[in-house]
Amino acid sequence: MQNFEYHNPARIIFGKGRENDVGGFVKEYGTKALICYGGDYLKKNGLLDRIENSLTESGISFLEFDGVVPNPRLSGVQTCIDLCRKNDVDFVLAVGGGSAIDTAKAVAAGVLYEGDLWETFLGHDTVKAALPVGVVLTLPASGSESSKACVVTKDEGHQKRMISSPLILPKFAILNPETTYTLPAYQTAAGCTDIMSHVMERYFTQTENVDFTDRLLEAALRTMLNVTPRVLRDPTNYNYRAEIMFVGNVAHNDLLGMGRQEDWACHNIEHELSALYDVTHGAGLAVVTPAWMKHVYKQNLQRFVQFAVRVMDVDIAFEHQEEIALEGIRRLENFFKSIGMPTTLHDVGITDDRYEEMALRALDGGATTGFFAKLDKEDIIAIFELAK
Amino acid sequence: MQNFEYHNPARIIFGKGRENDVGGFVKEYGTKALICYGGDYLKKNGLLDRIENSLTESGISFLEFDGVVPNPRLSGVQTCIDLCRKNDVDFVLAVGGGSAIDTAKAVAAGVLYEGDLWETFLGHDTVKAALPVGVVLTLPASGSESSKACVVTKDEGHQKRMISSPLILPKFAILNPETTYTLPAYQTAAGCTDIMSHVMERYFTQTENVDFTDRLLEAALRTMLNVTPRVLRDPTNYNYRAEIMFVGNVAHNDLLGMGRQEDWACHNIEHELSALYDVTHGAGLAVVTPAWMKHVYKQNLQRFVQFAVRVMDVDIAFEHQEEIALEGIRRLENFFKSIGMPTTLHDVGITDDRYEEMALRALDGGATTGFFAKLDKEDIIAIFELAK
Repeated sequence: MQNFEYHNPARIIFGKGRENDVGGFVKEYGTKALICYGGDYLKKNGLLDRIENSLTESGISFLEFDGVVPNPRLSGVQTCIDLCRKNDVDFVLAVGGGSAIDTAKAVAAGVLYEGDLWETFLGHDTVKAALPVGVVLTLPASGSESSKACVVTKDEGHQKRMISSPLILPKFAILNPETTYTLPAYQTAAGCTDIMSHVMERYFTQTENVDFTDRLLEAALRTMLNVTPRVLRDPTNYNYRAEIMFVGNVAHNDLLGMGRQEDWACHNIEHELSALYDVTHGAGLAVVTPAWMKHVYKQNLQRFVQFAVRVMDVDIAFEHQEEIALEGIRRLENFFKSIGMPTTLHDVGITDDRYEEMALRALDGGATTGFFAKLDKEDIIAIFELAK
Repeated sequence: MQNFEYHNPARIIFGKGRENDVGGFVKEYGTKALICYGGDYLKKNGLLDRIENSLTESGISFLEFDGVVPNPRLSGVQTCIDLCRKNDVDFVLAVGGGSAIDTAKAVAAGVLYEGDLWETFLGHDTVKAALPVGVVLTLPASGSESSKACVVTKDEGHQKRMISSPLILPKFAILNPETTYTLPAYQTAAGCTDIMSHVMERYFTQTENVDFTDRLLEAALRTMLNVTPRVLRDPTNYNYRAEIMFVGNVAHNDLLGMGRQEDWACHNIEHELSALYDVTHGAGLAVVTPAWMKHVYKQNLQRFVQFAVRVMDVDIAFEHQEEIALEGIRRLENFFKSIGMPTTLHDVGITDDRYEEMALRALDGGATTGFFAKLDKEDIIAIFELAK
């Protein structure tokens, strides 16, 4: 086990109807809020009304930015920053999923940053202050509601970059599973795949003696394997929606990765599918992950055997270790298929071969990506070939 | 799943040598510290020297209270409060296990409390301010290093009471597994039993649809079943000591109980063994828990079947559900025996029958204790009979 530090002061407010208390939580930190969201479903289903009523009842005035888009753009962030500065906004409230939250985080940092905010995304400067951020989560997937990270894309060149700072960690996040009842099946399955990927990026490690976190990660994966098919059959089942929302949060609040080297190659590679072909992030992960596994499993066969046996219920009595590992990967791939996810590049409509271009973009100037296996350009191309 | 709120801002600093950084952490919160500890092992093994050097290097001045005792007394707390007030102490640093931490928490609250601090323990008033508390943990068991609770015993009448407040949650806790190498086998096993009990108090619930936390709790228990016998054979193995210290922390940081009704009957009953017969807390839990299980398992047979199968590896193919449940309990009892814990009242030298007196004390004026099963006086006596 590696040395580690863990500190996650985000408050999680979980359960039925809790969005009606949002005003009281905001009031602890500010008086004038910018609400960031996208899509009109929040107006249709009444959630935005309930949030606004609660804010008004608590004496919080507010403005709205309804232009949140998937893979949030710097231009939208800049619009919000100007809005906040002009109106003396002192709190940013995200309503939605990762895109709304990351927009809000970038805005919170940007309002108090003098100069070009993109410099912090390029790593040329660090965030030194930020407005407080709150979240009403409606799409469990990104885990951004209790993470310190924020991903934004610069409009020109589709350059996607991350900042990470405890200053932009949300002060609170309200998680009401009822708000996810209307998520379409495909989006639900893609969100579940993203959650599972956040777990697997931590699970596949070369760090030894990580028994406890191994088992916690396995607990998260087995819960998702159990609940995802059920929620697709029964989308308004509170209990299934609740399990997914809870796992999605814990999967990315950092605890389960403590003391271990994490990997993140699949996320890096998938980002290029999303960038060039506009593939849904979770769906892209369902394509990339099994191919990545087939390419790297020999780098630590025992870890893949453990995954197969403890997570995918492969019989430990199989004679050959390698066959157990491969059966685990096959079962994961079949699981993704069973929940309606694509598992090949062909499935997501990618029939041309821009593998080298995507590999170079995934490497982003570095020699390798990932830690379980350090993948160079040829490795990434090989993974695309396996995913064809 | 029940609605819940989770907020645990304690910073966990985990790993080799991290006590050498304690000064830097204290410096973020204060300038003059009271160090609370007990026993001279900390002087012998050099830990106290390393802590004092680090404080000095960071410009923190300090006083010491070396009178921490198991089941900390109000009188000791009062001595420290007077010391702090006289010397303008603004930070309380606990070095040790639950007794040192709970002493430090009570002192931190008491310094800023006008009037009789015991009133807050009796529930007649609440803590409204506290000095910041930090921890260097040397005994993983209580989980107090990241809990809001603090248990103190009033000298007259051995009245044991708890306060709970976010104000006394430690700002940071340093967990270096190396500092636990010298724990004697019995104390190690008792600590491990206490950790397992913290997990089981949460595991045995009547709350339905708690799949994820069930699995997280099972992960914690299976890690302890795996590691405890190993550490007893190999007490200076860093990896085993690290797993225990990490599980001990997570077992009681509240996360694993979120959304579930917790029980805590075994802890309540055991406290009376400790109070009247001075039994080590963990050892008393090894006596009480299997007896409690035998008395209550029919209240939710399926939960005990799940425990037997998922935690104690009982074959699910057994014909009778009840037999599976009972086999699970037997295996837990055998496990406690195998790590040198007592499992009967006789084993801990209790041969007289003060069952009714202890039952009444455990109920503390209430009609029942516990939530998985609501135990009245007769139930508690029956549990003592089963534990004879």
